[in-house]
Amino acid sequence: MLDRPIITLTTDFGLKDPFVGLMKGVILGINPKAMITDISNHIERHNIFEASQALSMSYNFFPPTSIHIAVVDPGVGGKRRPILVATDSHYFIGPDNGIFTPVFDKSEDQFLKVFHITSSHYFLPMSGSTFHGRDIFAPVAAWLSKGVDSYKFGEEITDYVTISSPKTDISEESISGEVVSIDSFGNAITNITREEMSVLASMDSSDKFRIYYNENKMPLVNFYSENESSKASAIINSFGHLEIFVYMKSASQELNIRIGDKVSVKLA
Amino acid sequence: MLDRPIITLTTDFGLKDPFVGLMKGVILGINPKAMITDISNHIERHNIFEASQALSMSYNFFPPTSIHIAVVDPGVGGKRRPILVATDSHYFIGPDNGIFTPVFDKSEDQFLKVFHITSSHYFLPMSGSTFHGRDIFAPVAAWLSKGVDSYKFGEEITDYVTISSPKTDISEESISGEVVSIDSFGNAITNITREEMSVLASMDSSDKFRIYYNENKMPLVNFYSENESSKASAIINSFGHLEIFVYMKSASQELNIRIGDKVSVKLA
Amino acid sequence: MLDRPIITLTTDFGLKDPFVGLMKGVILGINPKAMITDISNHIERHNIFEASQALSMSYNFFPPTSIHIAVVDPGVGGKRRPILVATDSHYFIGPDNGIFTPVFDKSEDQFLKVFHITSSHYFLPMSGSTFHGRDIFAPVAAWLSKGVDSYKFGEEITDYVTISSPKTDISEESISGEVVSIDSFGNAITNITREEMSVLASMDSSDKFRIYYNENKMPLVNFYSENESSKASAIINSFGHLEIFVYMKSASQELNIRIGDKVSVKLA
Repeated sequence: MLDRPIITLTTDFGLKDPFVGLMKGVILGINPKAMITDISNHIERHNIFEASQALSMSYNFFPPTSIHIAVVDPGVGGKRRPILVATDSHYFIGPDNGIFTPVFDKSEDQFLKVFHITSSHYFLPMSGSTFHGRDIFAPVAAWLSKGVDSYKFGEEITDYVTISSPKTDISEESISGEVVSIDSFGNAITNITREEMSVLASMDSSDKFRIYYNENKMPLVNFYSENESSKASAIINSFGHLEIFVYMKSASQELNIRIGDKVSVKLA
Repeated sequence: MLDRPIITLTTDFGLKDPFVGLMKGVILGINPKAMITDISNHIERHNIFEASQALSMSYNFFPPTSIHIAVVDPGVGGKRRPILVATDSHYFIGPDNGIFTPVFDKSEDQFLKVFHITSSHYFLPMSGSTFHGRDIFAPVAAWLSKGVDSYKFGEEITDYVTISSPKTDISEESISGEVVSIDSFGNAITNITREEMSVLASMDSSDKFRIYYNENKMPLVNFYSENESSKASAIINSFGHLEIFVYMKSASQELNIRIGDKVSVKLA
Repeated sequence: MLDRPIITLTTDFGLKDPFVGLMKGVILGINPKAMITDISNHIERHNIFEASQALSMSYNFFPPTSIHIAVVDPGVGGKRRPILVATDSHYFIGPDNGIFTPVFDKSEDQFLKVFHITSSHYFLPMSGSTFHGRDIFAPVAAWLSKGVDSYKFGEEITDYVTISSPKTDISEESISGEVVSIDSFGNAITNITREEMSVLASMDSSDKFRIYYNENKMPLVNFYSENESSKASAIINSFGHLEIFVYMKSASQELNIRIGDKVSVKLA
């Protein structure tokens, strides 16, 4: 563990209610050395997939042994299990509802252990069934950050829950994918990756590609201000995904793009 | 004081303006070891009651000797006094406008001292009358966190301001209460508590109770996903309060619930 | 550098996307001792002037040697340069698009050095051109906070970009200015300052002044609750600027005030 262990939060709690703040109080009460950092507390309510994407984009930018709490948890208090996921570099704590699917996917050939959290002596005294973030996930993260071994929190399991995510369709001359998220700038991020596009053609020149969305045929550019017109363009963003944007505007609003809309890449 | 003293913030400042950020700058300039945690900076503008509720739900989850700044302060710069409240486990700093009423209520039989903050050598040089959060509350909290004794900030007072909160009406067969807040999930939280309901009947079975809101008669359930239908149910939430919810939806929107609406509990 | 160096963030990223959170991860991965504080991450999209104002109001309240990252950056990845600004008390890191103009203005007679950041061995491995906040600004701030000298990040430049801000017009009997921002309470802040008003008449009595906005003639008061009516008043706020408010209401909404609207001060 780090001298000042890092614990991150990804929730759909918002910041108006005191829920996030008091989870931090619980953590600091157990481990005053914890450095708590928000990834996002504005995940859309009950949207497990969105939380999994936010986490997937972020966790590798935190130092090894960071502990990531994720709570989008409509099944709280019911049969769904609380879990602790340990990979060779990060820890994840939250409900067993598929929120950690990208972690499982990326860990295919690496160290991965998943524990069903049952050791209630690490919990807060349970005063209800609606807030495991406070009563289970926060204190377990805090105790883990103090060096308690993962296996002490419960039995290892292998039947953890995963969720499916939209797949791309790759042929010799084109890739079909879809919009998987829209950021707060209105940029539309697709599930098509640089790696997939490099199979079609070498990425050394963006001129080789044309991007299609509905009636729109767009160029691929190298940076946003390369196309300062009000027309849509596409770019490989800094997470390696194809993204549709309109310079200084919201592509989502200008083109009325929604999550799930089809996007394709063809050779010029 | 803690080795790394905790200072929390509860304000109606929002996070768009730099007000909250620069209060943190003031605190860190005086005590670089302070750990500053937001409880909520999205309290409804000028809503002292809402701030008092957020604080009331939260402060006990922070470790002893935590210092809680609360600033919802329409009277800033006028006659209302700045105060420091010391209980046997926590400190509170803010305006004397009733924002700390739940702290006074809970401290009835415990240690409680309230000081009128007047020692201006602990303030920032005053450059206006509109921002005591920055000029008085933040620096006083920071100096307190460095170990300055409470009584050094001003004279003890006993005529501090309190605000009233809606009371429940309990008979042998029913409890009448009302909705006191709506969280960002749209759950409607009432002022009816588990303790009050246990006077009606033993809480070992939720079947004994029926919950009434307008024309709606609802069951009491043990966890949210116990009723996955789109009909409203009630639950004792993790703060010990009766709460109306609709699974995966906003009860507030579905039933058009407003703060102040009447809710009652009867035996089945 | 401070034992626990302070790094602040001012961005237009919002808090829904994980961008701000993962920048913090990058910083903590390089310097685990950094204390990261948000000034605002809700700057209006692409509004460089608004970011410059938020920074200008705030940075002096942070202790000397604080490092301020500011990212409102529509030109990211193009020709605009990444810069590091060193004054005698603070550091600033961001795009060379005028966002640091108030810093340049205030440093006129003081120490000021501006460096074009080019030393890419301090960057993250660049995986795209859309997120210099993560790949350049965050790691450079973190390395700077560890004590790396400013000049190691690149060559000094003097042709840095500035933006213009609206000026006041001062005559012997009046000052004409305009609304430059509206805070989240709806208060309308002008570019007219206490210093400018004190040239018209001594500030020892607010009775000497009348404030004009459209058809409204307003008194100058000393604190908000001095005028509890629903009529607009003006006040010198705690940043030394003339501000129009309506007690407990939004002046912006009540009077339909917009940024850029004219305001004037005359002697009574």
